[in-house]
Order: sequence, then structure tokens, then C-alpha cells
Amino acid sequence: MTTINQERFLSLLDEQATIGATPEGGLSRPALSEADMAIRAWFKQQVQSAGLDYRRDSAGNQFARLPADDPSAKALLIGSHLDSVPDGGRYDGALGVLSAFEAVLSLRDSGQSLPFHVDVVNFTDEEGTHQGLLGSSAFTGQLTPQALESPRSGRDALSAGLARAGLTEDGLLSAASPAEALLGYIEVHIEQGTRLESANQAIGVVSHIVGIRSNWLTFKGEAAHAGTMPMTDRRDALQGAAEFIRQARELVMRDFHPGVVNFGRISLAPGAFNIVPAEVRLAMEFRHGDLSVFDEMETALHALAHRVAEDCKLELTLESAHAVTPAPMSEHLIEIVESASDRAGLSHTRLMSFAGHDAQALARMTDSVMYFVPSVDGISHNPQEFTRPQDCINAATVMLNSVLLLAEQHGD
Amino acid sequence: MTTINQERFLSLLDEQATIGATPEGGLSRPALSEADMAIRAWFKQQVQSAGLDYRRDSAGNQFARLPADDPSAKALLIGSHLDSVPDGGRYDGALGVLSAFEAVLSLRDSGQSLPFHVDVVNFTDEEGTHQGLLGSSAFTGQLTPQALESPRSGRDALSAGLARAGLTEDGLLSAASPAEALLGYIEVHIEQGTRLESANQAIGVVSHIVGIRSNWLTFKGEAAHAGTMPMTDRRDALQGAAEFIRQARELVMRDFHPGVVNFGRISLAPGAFNIVPAEVRLAMEFRHGDLSVFDEMETALHALAHRVAEDCKLELTLESAHAVTPAPMSEHLIEIVESASDRAGLSHTRLMSFAGHDAQALARMTDSVMYFVPSVDGISHNPQEFTRPQDCINAATVMLNSVLLLAEQHGD
Repeated sequence: MTTINQERFLSLLDEQATIGATPEGGLSRPALSEADMAIRAWFKQQVQSAGLDYRRDSAGNQFARLPADDPSAKALLIGSHLDSVPDGGRYDGALGVLSAFEAVLSLRDSGQSLPFHVDVVNFTDEEGTHQGLLGSSAFTGQLTPQALESPRSGRDALSAGLARAGLTEDGLLSAASPAEALLGYIEVHIEQGTRLESANQAIGVVSHIVGIRSNWLTFKGEAAHAGTMPMTDRRDALQGAAEFIRQARELVMRDFHPGVVNFGRISLAPGAFNIVPAEVRLAMEFRHGDLSVFDEMETALHALAHRVAEDCKLELTLESAHAVTPAPMSEHLIEIVESASDRAGLSHTRLMSFAGHDAQALARMTDSVMYFVPSVDGISHNPQEFTRPQDCINAATVMLNSVLLLAEQHGD
Repeated sequence: MTTINQERFLSLLDEQATIGATPEGGLSRPALSEADMAIRAWFKQQVQSAGLDYRRDSAGNQFARLPADDPSAKALLIGSHLDSVPDGGRYDGALGVLSAFEAVLSLRDSGQSLPFHVDVVNFTDEEGTHQGLLGSSAFTGQLTPQALESPRSGRDALSAGLARAGLTEDGLLSAASPAEALLGYIEVHIEQGTRLESANQAIGVVSHIVGIRSNWLTFKGEAAHAGTMPMTDRRDALQGAAEFIRQARELVMRDFHPGVVNFGRISLAPGAFNIVPAEVRLAMEFRHGDLSVFDEMETALHALAHRVAEDCKLELTLESAHAVTPAPMSEHLIEIVESASDRAGLSHTRLMSFAGHDAQALARMTDSVMYFVPSVDGISHNPQEFTRPQDCINAATVMLNSVLLLAEQHGD
């Protein structure tokens, strides 16, 4: 029976964590930084010394291929990303790439021939130092010139990063790969939440990756003297915003579970102890995995905002800041991962992913699935991020078993 | 019967409004600015050409005396301030000084002798360009060296302003006048609210000038991923702040009418669409005229803040930013102003002043009262500030009648 090499795998995980390591025990490898260059060089060296085919596309995505006997076979893509947020943890992304890499090393060791190529991938800038899901968007043909015009890091930082990696914007925009060459995509990641821990489950198979919509809400009232203007006559923009924050939270918890809503930024004008606020600008972000429910959720939130504004005698402006469509995972691959977990004797449950992942870009191109292993206390994007060695081993084992199960199906 | 000279009075009101006039029809005379120097020079010239005794104290407060026959008589102080907020209106302060000045001019014209001196006063920096109630605090011996160490405008602006006016900090701190020389203080001001308009009353006699307490509230929770952290597990600092804003408003309106509360500043950290807020800093200011109720109001608001913080699993820190004690007006002088209004056939009502005024500093030194005339739509601190000519005339008439009534009482 083909199994992973636990010692080799845990040692690879430790070794990658020395690159960009921070004193707090985490790591800092923002995309296209020097530390990212170092982890890419390390990964390329691992691939080449393992005798696998190494390739980098024009978006900087790195690939390690274990080839099928038939050169014209399709490729199963497995992996994640090696970049991190600044001062992040050791597991977010790296566990996915190295679980895929270990699965391929084990398959190579077993000497068995496969009915499809297996490509391990390290996608560029999943975390969005410059642009979220940059590499996977480029690979799947979803990257637009507009996205590159106003990168999160600013134009200068993007240019400097691309130059450091020997990449170009033209290269990013022409990195789309043909969908017909792919069999599907499987990714494993740490949960970044506590649902698996709470439910005492080993594997969380993702049914949907949530859509994300971000809005700016501007409540406009009238500045007034905070002493002389009677409470009942005020058109207090912060009163409206506070009412909306409270009611929106209740609405989402009551009617749109497990959807979530967050208010992550707020500012007001004029801004003095003794002046009734004339204007509040409020950042709202909400997420759901099911597109039709997501649309209902948006309609309900916007209607509520208008109702609250009217009740408080305020004007309301709603602007869309950003939108990501929900990505349903492939039912076929979900069942593969569930069977792969069963074969390893691991408990599993289905859940939505409330964070964005490369799999959501891939899902628009090919059958895709992702699964989670527990992260202790749900901590992530933090040096304290920790996934127990056994859960790491489970991640790689389920990846290997999934590839084997797909191979068995294709061998029929 | 002694009456005011309406034509002279309205012409004085128009003339003062040309000094520091703004294109929008208001005026801008921040204390100790060039425009303030110009209005002070104008006022001095008016006083001297009217043949009244002019005096300036070491806090820059200007006085115009109509002397009693007996040089050892006490003085009745009447007036307000000629400074304004930046881009303010024509009436806030100036109406009070000129109503007092017109009352004195009319008394002088009548040739009658008075049993007390009448001093018209223009107090320095009522609006707090540098320090709120600066001149009246200095005059009443309440100004502290600490207040001058951190003026609102900053040390440099205060020094420059004092130099421009030929004043010094030592002079400010030694400007206290003996209380025993004073008979009382009467001030008229525009309402800066809509209560008189709504109640269709000509004169609002102030029963208390409200106390003001300002607090910083800091709600502390925990930053979390706005997708992966379940709604029920969040420690969202903005949720707590929003709940408190709403409940505090309801509490004050239900249990502490006519007290008021305002939340005029808010900021949060870390501040991203996709991060649950870890910390919110919220500015709360509340006002009430009755000290014992004011204390109850503070206790209730603070208890509510702690309860909301606990319900939302947050930590709460409360800091006092500023406090002004409520100032009850003199019942005797309230009745004088009411009788003065009756004598002029003007309707009147009692109300609290929800804004600070020089009379609140004076009330700690001598019997004091103030009264309001309507300001259209309650607009003030704004170029649109407007008080109808008839209401201006009422202001000066009630001032004259009040002085006459006091003279009659003292003549008994």
C-alpha cells in the first residue's frame, strides 16, 4: 500500500519554515519579496533534486510534474501557495503545497504508473500582497488589466516585485492555461477557524468557497450643536450607523446563517465631542457560499440600510467596493476526498470556506475541491498559527489517497 | 418712559457685522485674531465717543461704565462677547454686548441717576479659540495655569494672540476681580436652538446652564478573520460600541430628559473590510443642568457601558476628558428678567441652556442670569445664523427694563 513518508514530510515542513522565519516563531514571506524569492528557489531545488519536471509560467506560478506514461494525458493539479501575509504562520499555504509535493514523492517512490499527470503547484501571491489570488487568477484567465492598475500594494511596489521575480505585467496577463488540459484541482489548507476542533472532526471537506461583497455605506445627516439641538430633532449620522450595525448583525445571524457580516472600518465628520455627527462612512463586508441566498442576503441588507436611514432622517449612499462570486466545489471531487478520508480512517464533515482560496479561481476553470485540517484555536495570519503534526500527516495522506482513488477510477 | 433707540441699536448691530465679515454673510472673529483686534478697537471707540468710562482688565476684557452717583456703589455687569467661531454668524455674542451697550446708552440719554454702576462687558475668547470662557474665567478667578499649558489652539497660537493684544499669561492669571464689588450679571444671547420658535415665545429665561462631561470609552475585543470566525464567537469591539450608542441614547431620552448625550468621534483598529474590529475608541459628551440628576445620569451611562461591554465579551476603559459643573441661575434675577419681559409685553418661558456661556463662569462669583431670544431654525456657528430685528429689539428692551427694575428695587 502506498503511504506518505511521514519523517520526510515533517522535515520538509520544518525546513520551509526557516525561510522568512520571524523571531516570534512564524514567518514573513509577502509575495515577490526577497523571502518569497528564497522559498521559490528552495522549492525549485526540491523539485529538481527529486527528479520531477520543473516549470514556471509567466505569472510566476511554479509547477512540479510527475508525468503519466501518456504525454497527451490530462493533468491533475494539486497544491496551494508558499507566500504568506507579513508576520504570518508556518502552515497557511505551505501545508497545501508540501502535502501535494509529499503525495507526489510517495507516488514516485511507489513506482506505479498513473493515467494522468500530477502537477504540484505553488501559486503566486494568494495572500494579496499585491492582488489577492494573483497567480491563480492569471492561470485561469481571470486577471484583468484593471486589477493591475490599482494593486493593493500600489503600482510601485508591484513593479518592484515583478522585476525582482523576473516577471512582467504582460506575462501575468497572458498566463492563462487551457482548461481542457486539466482533470481537476485539489487543495488542502488549514481551517483558520474552530469548526473542526469544536466538532472533533479530522477533515473538513469544503462544499462552497464563499462569495464576498464589500460595500461603502455613507449615512448623511446634519451637523448640530450637541447641547442645544434637542435629541428628538437631531439627524445624527452615527445613530443611523449604530442602528444598522446592530440590526444587520441580527438579520444575518437570524436569517442567513452560516453567512457572516462585518463592519471593519468607520469614520465620521465633522468629528468633535460637541458636534452631532453629520456624516458616517461605514465599511460592510458580507459572505455566503450559496449564490441565490447570497443575493437575497444582499437585498435584505440593503433594504435594512435604507429603512434605518429613513427612520433616522438620514440620506444613504451605497457603493460597491469589491465582489467575489461564491465558488461551489465539484461534487465528484468532494466524494473523492470523503472516500480518501474514509480509506485513512479519518472522520470528516462538509463545510463552507469563509475565506478566499486559490481553489475559488480554479473552480471557474475545472472541477475543484478543497479540504481543511484543524488549526489550533482557529488562529491564523499570526505567528501562533499551529496545526498538530498528526493533522499535517492527515492532510498529506488524504491528498495521496485522493490521487490514488482518481487513478483507480481512471484505470477502470 | 425710558426706551431703547431702535434705529441706533440696529445700526450698531449692522456696523459691528462689517468687521471680520465673510463673503457668506457671516463673520469670522476668532479671539485675539486681527479681526478681534479690529472689533475691540471699534467697541472702545464707541464707548469713548458715547462719553462712558472705558477700561480693559489684564485678561483683555473690555468694560464700559455708566457710573452711579455714589462712586463706592456696586456694579451691575451686563454683556457677552464680541469674538466668534471661525465662519460664524453676526449675532452669537455681539447681540449680547450691543443690547447691553444700547441699554446703557438709553439710560445715559434719559439722564436718570442710578443706585449702582452699570458695566457693559466684552469678555475675551468666550468661544474657546484658545480656551473656552477665557476672559470670564480669568475675571472670576477660575483660570488655572494648567489651562494655559495646553490651550486648544496650542501654545504658539496662544502666545502670538496674547502678544497681538498686548496681554500676558501673568496678566490673565491675575485678572480676578473682587466679588463684593458686583451686584450681579445679566446676559442676553441668541438661543442657538428651536425651543422658543417651537413654543412661539419671545424670551427664554435660563434656569440653569448645563454641566458638560466628556468621556473617552475604549471597547476592546479581539481582531479576527471576518470570514472564518463564526458570528457567535466574535469579540467585535464595534458591535459593543454600536449597542452602547443606541442604548445610551434611549436611556437619556427616557430617563434624563431634557439632558442630552452625543457621540462625536469614533475610531477603530485594525481597520480593514475583512478584519473584525479589535478596538473602538468612542467620544461621549453628556449635559444636564441639575447637578444631582447629572450625577445620576453619569452613573447610569457608565453602568450601561459596562453592561454592554460584558454582554459583548469586551473590555471597557472609561476616561474623563473634560468636565464643566452645571450653573444654576439666580432666582431673584430670573424673576427680574421675567418682570422686565412682562413690562415689555413679551411672552417668556424658562429653559435650560444646553450651551456654555460666560454667565456660567459669572454664576460662581455673583448672582447671574441669562436669557435667550429666538434664532431662526436654531442655526448658529454658521453664516446663516439669523435673529429677526424685532427679536434683537426685544433683547435690548428686556435688558434695559431689567436694569430699570433693579434700580427701582435698590431705590426703595
